[in-house]
Parts: sequence; C-alpha cells; structure tokens
Amino acid sequence: MGIKVGVLGAGRIGKVHAKAISSTAGAELYAVSDAFPDAAQALADQYGARTAAIDEVSDDTNVDAVVICTPTDTHADLIEKFAHAGKAIFCEKPIDLSLERVKACLNTVEKLGATLMLGFNRRFDPHFKAVRDAIEEGRIGDVEMVQITSRDPGAPPPDYIQVSGGIFRDMTIHDFDMARYLLAEEIASVYATASVLVDPQIGKLGDYDSATIVLTTVSGKHCSISNSRRASYGYDQRIEVHGSRGAIAAENQRPVSIELATSEGYLKPPLHDFFMTRYTEAYAAEIAAFVDAIVNNRAPAPNGEDGLRALALAEAALKSVAERRAVGLDEI
Amino acid sequence: MGIKVGVLGAGRIGKVHAKAISSTAGAELYAVSDAFPDAAQALADQYGARTAAIDEVSDDTNVDAVVICTPTDTHADLIEKFAHAGKAIFCEKPIDLSLERVKACLNTVEKLGATLMLGFNRRFDPHFKAVRDAIEEGRIGDVEMVQITSRDPGAPPPDYIQVSGGIFRDMTIHDFDMARYLLAEEIASVYATASVLVDPQIGKLGDYDSATIVLTTVSGKHCSISNSRRASYGYDQRIEVHGSRGAIAAENQRPVSIELATSEGYLKPPLHDFFMTRYTEAYAAEIAAFVDAIVNNRAPAPNGEDGLRALALAEAALKSVAERRAVGLDEI
Amino acid sequence: MGIKVGVLGAGRIGKVHAKAISSTAGAELYAVSDAFPDAAQALADQYGARTAAIDEVSDDTNVDAVVICTPTDTHADLIEKFAHAGKAIFCEKPIDLSLERVKACLNTVEKLGATLMLGFNRRFDPHFKAVRDAIEEGRIGDVEMVQITSRDPGAPPPDYIQVSGGIFRDMTIHDFDMARYLLAEEIASVYATASVLVDPQIGKLGDYDSATIVLTTVSGKHCSISNSRRASYGYDQRIEVHGSRGAIAAENQRPVSIELATSEGYLKPPLHDFFMTRYTEAYAAEIAAFVDAIVNNRAPAPNGEDGLRALALAEAALKSVAERRAVGLDEI
Amino acid sequence: MGIKVGVLGAGRIGKVHAKAISSTAGAELYAVSDAFPDAAQALADQYGARTAAIDEVSDDTNVDAVVICTPTDTHADLIEKFAHAGKAIFCEKPIDLSLERVKACLNTVEKLGATLMLGFNRRFDPHFKAVRDAIEEGRIGDVEMVQITSRDPGAPPPDYIQVSGGIFRDMTIHDFDMARYLLAEEIASVYATASVLVDPQIGKLGDYDSATIVLTTVSGKHCSISNSRRASYGYDQRIEVHGSRGAIAAENQRPVSIELATSEGYLKPPLHDFFMTRYTEAYAAEIAAFVDAIVNNRAPAPNGEDGLRALALAEAALKSVAERRAVGLDEI
Repeated sequence: MGIKVGVLGAGRIGKVHAKAISSTAGAELYAVSDAFPDAAQALADQYGARTAAIDEVSDDTNVDAVVICTPTDTHADLIEKFAHAGKAIFCEKPIDLSLERVKACLNTVEKLGATLMLGFNRRFDPHFKAVRDAIEEGRIGDVEMVQITSRDPGAPPPDYIQVSGGIFRDMTIHDFDMARYLLAEEIASVYATASVLVDPQIGKLGDYDSATIVLTTVSGKHCSISNSRRASYGYDQRIEVHGSRGAIAAENQRPVSIELATSEGYLKPPLHDFFMTRYTEAYAAEIAAFVDAIVNNRAPAPNGEDGLRALALAEAALKSVAERRAVGLDEI
Repeated sequence: MGIKVGVLGAGRIGKVHAKAISSTAGAELYAVSDAFPDAAQALADQYGARTAAIDEVSDDTNVDAVVICTPTDTHADLIEKFAHAGKAIFCEKPIDLSLERVKACLNTVEKLGATLMLGFNRRFDPHFKAVRDAIEEGRIGDVEMVQITSRDPGAPPPDYIQVSGGIFRDMTIHDFDMARYLLAEEIASVYATASVLVDPQIGKLGDYDSATIVLTTVSGKHCSISNSRRASYGYDQRIEVHGSRGAIAAENQRPVSIELATSEGYLKPPLHDFFMTRYTEAYAAEIAAFVDAIVNNRAPAPNGEDGLRALALAEAALKSVAERRAVGLDEI
Repeated sequence: MGIKVGVLGAGRIGKVHAKAISSTAGAELYAVSDAFPDAAQALADQYGARTAAIDEVSDDTNVDAVVICTPTDTHADLIEKFAHAGKAIFCEKPIDLSLERVKACLNTVEKLGATLMLGFNRRFDPHFKAVRDAIEEGRIGDVEMVQITSRDPGAPPPDYIQVSGGIFRDMTIHDFDMARYLLAEEIASVYATASVLVDPQIGKLGDYDSATIVLTTVSGKHCSISNSRRASYGYDQRIEVHGSRGAIAAENQRPVSIELATSEGYLKPPLHDFFMTRYTEAYAAEIAAFVDAIVNNRAPAPNGEDGLRALALAEAALKSVAERRAVGLDEI
Repeated sequence: MGIKVGVLGAGRIGKVHAKAISSTAGAELYAVSDAFPDAAQALADQYGARTAAIDEVSDDTNVDAVVICTPTDTHADLIEKFAHAGKAIFCEKPIDLSLERVKACLNTVEKLGATLMLGFNRRFDPHFKAVRDAIEEGRIGDVEMVQITSRDPGAPPPDYIQVSGGIFRDMTIHDFDMARYLLAEEIASVYATASVLVDPQIGKLGDYDSATIVLTTVSGKHCSISNSRRASYGYDQRIEVHGSRGAIAAENQRPVSIELATSEGYLKPPLHDFFMTRYTEAYAAEIAAFVDAIVNNRAPAPNGEDGLRALALAEAALKSVAERRAVGLDEI
C-alpha cells in the first residue's frame, strides 16, 4: 500500500492534505495527530487511519513521512523532531516567522540529511505550471517582466492577523515564491509600499491590507506584485510574464464557465471565492510530488531553502515600507 | 477629384453611403436625389454637393456612377434606367422581391454591359472578411460546416414588415449571401423552420420573427442560420466555419471593450445595438470597392447574380416552411 | 459503508463509474463482472472489491444496485434481469438500438417498479447544468432557440461504427437528450441532413460523419445541432440558449487556461481531447445522483422514458435524412 | 464652416490631427506650416487648405486656433507666441523637457488668459474613458489600486531616443497622466526601477527600455506601471482599476477579432502594432474636445497644469532610479 504518512494537525489544511494522501497512488494515510483528540479521530475515521500523539508518530517505525499542518510557531520544532526521527517531512509555509530560527532549523535538516519539502502549493497549480513550462520551452524568449496579481476575497479574522507575521509573511510569501519560480534568477532588491485601505482594524494591529511590491533581479528583470485583502469579485490569482519574444499569462479560474447575455451586457460568474476550491488540483499534485520525491529518492522542490528565501523577501519588504527605499537582499 | 457619384435616396442608408463616398479617395459626392427636396438638400449641403431630380442625374454626363438607396420597389426600374444611361450602378439589396423581375432586370444589365454591384455590406466587414481570407489561405482545410447567428436587437415597425418581402427576403438574405461567400460552392437545397415567438403582430402580417435554416451543398457541406428579430443583448452577428483541419470564428462586436468585476460577476457591455454602428467599417469598404471597380475597370463583387441567388434561396426557404421539407434550388 | 454496487463491464466507461462509486459518500464498489476475468480482477483489485459472474451479482442479496457498462446489445436483457432481481439499475445509453425492444424493456421495468437511471452524463456537467439552472431561474425569459455544437476530436474505429447504430443513435443521442433537457417542451418534428465529409470508410458502413439537425417544438421553439466526427481543435462541446430576455451559453473547456502572446497572435491551448477528461465532473455527479436517488428513494432522472425519447428522435432523424423532409415524432 | 485651425508641423502626428480637424463638425483645416514646404503643401492639398509660414499663421486674423505638432524643443516658444497672438492652442506633449521652462511658459499662458490643451490622447480612448466613467459612476466603489500596462511594439530609432528626454518623459508620461486621470487624487511619491533589456544601444544613450514604476497617493492608493520598448505581440495598452466594491479593466485592441482553432490551439490575431491605428478614435475625439472647448468657451482638459504634473512625475522617476528610493513630489 505504499508509504505511510502521518498528518499533524487536523484543521482546514490538514483535511486537505489527508484527502490528497488518500487519493495518491503509493501513499497511505496512516495516522492523524491533533491537540483536539476529537478532531484527530474524525479525520482518521474518514480514511480508516489511526490517531496518535505526536511522540507516537515520531517513534513509530512504520511511519515513513509526516505532513505538518500545525500552527506556525510549532513548525521549526516539529521539523527538527521528525528530522531526528528519520522521517520525510512536508511542512506548510512558513517554517517560522524568524529568519534566524529558520536558518537554525534548516541547519539541522541539512546535517541530518533529512528530506524537507515546503508547502508552496501554487507551484503545482496546472495553469501556473503551464506558464513555467512554456518559459522553460523558450516560448517567450528571455523573461523580462513578471506581474503577479494576488488578492483575497476577504481579510482573515483579527486573531489570525495577529499571529500571521503580517501580510508579507502570510500572503505575499506565496507571490515571492512564485516570482522566484518564474524569474529563475535570484532577486537583488525589494521595494514595497503598503496601506490600510480595507479595514482600519488591520492597521491597528500594525499590519497592512493593500500592498504593491517591485522586485529587481541582478540582471535587471522586474517583478511587480499587487496584493489586497479584499476582492469583491472572488479570489483573484493571475500571472503574466513578458519576455523578449512573447508573453504568457495564466487566467483567473471560476467554478462554472457560462456567460449570460442580457440588456445589461455579458455576465460571467464570479471567481472561486476560496483558496481550497481554487487550488484543489494544486494541493493534490503537491502531495503527489512529495510522495514521488520519497519513493524515487529525489530532492523535493520547493525545499527549505525556498522557504528561507521567500521569508527573506518578506523581511526586505517590511524594511522597505519602513524606510521608503529599495532594500537589497544582502542587507537581510 | 475622381469619379462623380449621385446618391438616389437621402434616407438612413443614403446618408451612410453619402458619407462613405465623401471619405473615399478617388470619389466625389456630386448629386443627391430624393422625393423629399428638403432631405436631398440637407444631405447635399453637408458634403458640398448639388441636388437633382433623378432624370437630371441620368442625363448629366458628369455623373459616373449612382448609388441606389430608394425603396425596394423602385430598384429594378432605376437599375435599368441608369444602365441605359451608361452609369456604373451600386444598388442596395434586394433588386426586387420578384425573382422574375430580377431576372429581367439582370438581362438588361447584361445586354448593356453595365457595371452593377449589390449592397451585401457584410462581405466587407473586416472580421468576416478575415474569416473568408483564412479559409482561402487554407488555414482550416476544406470547409465542412458553417454556422451563422444573425439576430436583430428589435423588430422593424409593421409598416416596414408589410413591404419587406418577409424575414427571408429582408433579413436572412444577408445570411444567404454570407453562406454562399463562405461555402464557395453553390447550395443544392434549403430547409427552413420559422415561428412567431417575438410579436404576434408580425404573425398577423403573414411573416415570421424567428427562423432556423439549413443549407446543403452538392458535395454535402452544411450551413445553419439562426435568425431572430429580438436580441435583448444587442445586434448578434457571428460566424463560425468548421473545416477539415480547424475552425475559424468571427466574434461579436461592441462599442467599448471593458470588463467590470463585482460580486455579481464579470460584466462586459452589450453589443452594438444598430447595424449602422456595427457595420461602419463595412459600409466604407463596400463603397471603396465599388469605386475601385469603376476606376480600375474590374468586375464588381457582389454582383447582380449574387443578388439573384440570395433571393432564390429566400424563395426556397419560404417554400420549405410551407411544405415542411428540403426544397431543391432546381425547383425555384 | 452505504449501498453496495456491482459494476457490469470493466472497460473504459466501467472504470470511470467504478472510480466514481468509490469516491461517492454512501456507496461502495462491491463487485465487478466482465467477460474477461482479468479485466474484472484488475478493476476489482484497484478498489478492494470482489469479482463475480453476472448471475452471482443478481443473486447476491448484499448487492443494492448495478451499473451496466456492457455492450449495447446486452443492455435490455440485463436491465430486465436486474429489475427482476430487485436491484436499482444505472444503464449506459442506449437501452437498445430497437425502439420496440426499448419499449418492451421499459414495460418490464415499470411493472416491476424498478429504479432505472440512464447514463446521459452531460446533464450533470456543471457548466451545462448552470445553463439549465439559469433558464429555470428565468434569467433569459422564455426559451426560444437552442444551439448545440457537439463535435468529436476523431471518429471511432470501423468495428465500433458497425455496432453503434449510426451517428444519430450513438453521438447525437446525447444532444437530443440535451435539447429536451433545455427546451423543457416535447419536440414535434425533426429535420436532419447528414454527409460523409471526414472518412469515406464511414460512408461504406452506411453511416455519416457530419450532420446538422433542426428540432421544432409544438409551440415553435427551435433547436439546431451541429455534429462532426472530426474536430482538430479538440472535443467541441458548446451550448447556447436564446430567450425572450437574454441568452446563456456554456463555453468549451480546456485542461489549462493560459494564453501565449507572440508575433503570431494570442494562443490558447486546444480543448480537452477526450470525453473522459472533458466530463470528469459530470461522471462523478451522475453516480452521486444515482446513489442519492436510491438512498433517498427519489425518482431518478434521466430515466428510461428519457432514453426512449432520445432514441425516437434518432429514428426520426434517420427517416428525415432518407426522405429529405421534417419528420413528425408522431410518425415514429 | 466653423473655427479655422492651423496645423504646425506636417509630420506623422500633424497628418493625424489635420484629418481629425477636417472630419470635425464646426472646424476647418485652414492652414498648414512645416519647415519642409513640400510636406506642408502635400498635407494642405489633401484637405483644400493653404500653406503658410508660422508667422503668417500667427498674424492671420482668420485663424482661431493652432495645433502644435512640431519637434518638442519648439513647443514652449510656439505656445507663448500663439498665446500672445490670441489663438487657442492645442500642443502635443510634452511642453518642454525642462520643468523650469514649462513653468515659465504656463505662467505666460495664464497671464494672457490663453486657451491651452495638451495632447494626452489616451484620455479620449473610448475604452479608457469608459473605465473612468465607470469609476465616476461609483461602480467599483473607492479606487484603491491602478495597474497600467503600456508596452510599445518596438523601440524608436536612436536619433529619436537622444532628443526624447528618455523613457519616462517620452513614454511613461502618457501613463503618468492616465494614473492621475484614474486615481483622481494627487500623487505623493514615485518609485521606479529601470533596465536595459531590449537594446544595449539604448543603454549607451543613457536611457532605459524597460521600467516598472509605483506611484503612491497621499491617502495610500497605489498605481503600478509596466513599460517596455518591445512587445512582439503588438501595442500592449491595458488598464485595470481595483476598488472597494469591484474592479474594472480596459482590454487590448486588435484590428480584427477572429479566432482560429487548430490542433495548435485557439489563435487570435496580434494587437494593433502602431499607436495611430490603436488610438484612431482617441485622436478624433481629442480634437473634437478641443474644438468644443473653443466654441463653447469651456476650460480645456487636459491642460497645461496636467502637462506640468506628468512631467514632474517623470523627473521624480528619474531621481528614484538614481537614488533607489521613493521620491516625494515635494522634492521636485
């Protein structure tokens, strides 16, 4: 029945991964851990798995791999624990909100030669992946400018905002990773401007809800990112890449593609309104890639280094907002 | 200043052609005739032309060509008159509602060697023309099936319906010509079904407001036409051609191409709501082609024969509705 | 674990349904039958089910329902057999190629009060279903004209053509059902024209590969259907409905929605090239509806009567091609 | 025949304006001036106008207005000359490359109470204007983020680059004006990053060919601009505005809107490849607005102040590239 996987954390994203594991050939959902035993039990039951305390999972020699879906402040400790236990590790982003802590953690991972994959699910979206494939096939020549539009249907609750590390570490971090994935060149400097336009409460918590970020690479390529915590028309997720011989774009996705024509005009339905329905295929492909990396002994991608670099970009963006200037990655 | 053109009829379509003539290099609007002297005067003044009675236009040796925009029941007589006068003739469709009268008229035109071009403006629409060009360049292989969707924003007034010759001779006639233009093969048989779904008044006048027509060529190619006298969303004018190696479509046109995204969805504005704004470019290109035919002594297209054949298709459609069967063109 | 379902026939469509059953809450793939034991075994193994002869399935009191995916000429017999056995039945279309046999079979089903659902999967496509929902919500007013474009990427092999009953019974039958589903009014007459434009071999077998069909309802609504066995650009499946206050369309579907811009123009990828990937969601929703009908004791839709009516339309179309006239359903 | 207009400069843009004047009701092309008499004569002949030296135009009491289409370094002097002569003035952007010179010139204009309109033609594009109209009608709520994509099909020749004032004053200046037009709020700071990715020759001339600019307003709204001197797919001119209750976008324009479907996919033709065909309607509407301002004694828009502010934004952008920081408009 393939490799045995434990899921740590039976919340929203834990459920997504549990389902993906169950549907992946060569993998088996073996155990579920959660601080709330009922949540663990419900999820385990759904797929015929057992529940187990985290220590039990790490001690269980049957377990090949874990998927870490617990709160952010536990990620680094759990990665180290399971690296010591010799398990392959998939961890939701970010590894930690502190760059220092992330570096220490990755040091441990490296020393132990552990397999660590980071949950930048958007790399596995078939539309975004097709954009990257087209670039690699040389269909647009040399990449020159990337535009990422990434807006949420609505803001998360204040409780979440408070522990999220702020918009750059929580939301833009996906776009930072996507920029790196598409530019295929390391970023030299970051400029960011950020405002509170959506909800004053977010401002009171010291965070922003609207941001525009410009990345510049060493060779002078640009990437601009547009973020908002409120898009009335749905989950706005688009990518455009302009190159020397053409351009390629991935369009927004909607649950049904119909068009209603009336005297008001031609109306298409709103976009997906939730990341889970928007990225259903991406979550499945991501877990399949993790399983494939373990089974075929391949280096997983995105890895811990990718997590570190995206977080460094978030740090630079924060510094840029404060200092109103482009911040070099060498300053972080 | 190029060839001198007289416009006969200063109504809606006369104005369109007068403007087109004035804007065409190598042509000059020379005279305007209309049963209503004020209408003629107003149009003539706008472009610095004179007014003249029809006989004056035909007798004036300065006049090279006429554009006939008078009511349908005068077309055949005027064509013959100006053919005798040696003028090049552009005539709005149809030549006459009676096939016999059309044939007699074309006989005269042929005997006199007169230049006669018919006003099937849609052949000159840049989008439809690009479809035809792509076919001729072999981009879709052999043409197999044509679909024409042609719907008016609203029905004409009862007065007009009564003298129009009915939906097939008035409205579908454009689609019949377009079918011939795109199939590039003569049509063997016609099947039509027609209903009164829009306005019972139209039914009382013995006409229909909704029709579906299927044309079949000798080699077995098909064309379907969908007509309605009411499209709440604007002037619906689309063409699709399916071939052995691909398909090509001309899309609907709208005055502005913007898209509004809200919680209701993504809304584009309605289409053009009037044939004059929809076919502005086509009317200009049509007159330019007429002038070009005269100046360069080329056979004009579409010509009288095209007018005859489209009318014969309308006759066949009427017979098909009555007899509920496919009617061969050899029966007409 | 819910109702126990046997799948009869482990071929292409049997696999699709086996997967759908396994993924449907409240259902369990219990047994697989196939004339080729290896095929049955392979499919059964994949989902932890057993293999069984058809008689064993009908005799097994654990079995609640069967899904018939065997060749067409066995459908009617199997429906009757399992109706007698008291099982709920889902059968792929068509029930039989003979109208008489279908009527006899449905008679038996009715007498025995058996649950029978027909495999018109397209009713469950989310895009087509959204079109129907919009109609029912009155968003386009009264339905007036339906246009169905339905083209296969390529023709089936000659062996299949020979037993398929011909293009109208094999391919158009889906469109006939869709027309009925969208018009929500019974069809009064059928006109069809059909040709061999794709492959002369198909003509030699007495079948057609290109067809245009026009349906007219009692109240004068129209539906046109365009069929081809060859669409180089993929599986072309579109629906448009024009009504008194608007129109609604379901667009084609493609695996990835990206757009490449170069000096050649703007290129989107081809459509799905296979009905299984195009209708993945529809197949899942169809089985879910079957399970729901059984569990909640609801009348299934589409049912045997729908299968009969679609087949009658195919008969009428064949007669129309032969007689070159509109054929009334009362003649069938 | 309406107001009499002199066109100064019979080059590319002079021809566009001459045609627009001739087609505008209430205006007449009266005289054409050019340093090359043949060029002036040819253009004058085309519309039945006279040729005249610049001094003759300014002295001619018949002349009501002038349209300045001469090289940039003559703009300010000509504006002052014709302001003194009491003529209404339309001037192509920019007034001058030096902010100081522009301010002095506008001072003179103001003192003399002259009518001065600036040639920011894009405000008159029907699609962009519809975006602005929708914003003013409140259809997207409060404007929050503007994205302008503005790419030329190809770079101008080195000779032009040298006198152009650089990419920000020559190309981005249109986008700066558009940003102000859409944000409806003055801009507080500018960040720009610029590179040479297209043509090293441009770099040798001290200019850039690729730029990304971020504008921030006092209230924290953002605008990002993406510029390139090379778009293989045509003249890429798009606008998106995201607001509190929705978003609105103006799409790219192409000469023909057809779609070719083959086994390669679905192909739409490239965009317009030239600003004159892309903005045909805008040029006509712009001159109509100028004539309307004169005839109806309205303040023209955009005016000299708009020209000054767009130029100041270009200065700020240049400073930002040099200093790698956001530059306040109060620093310029």
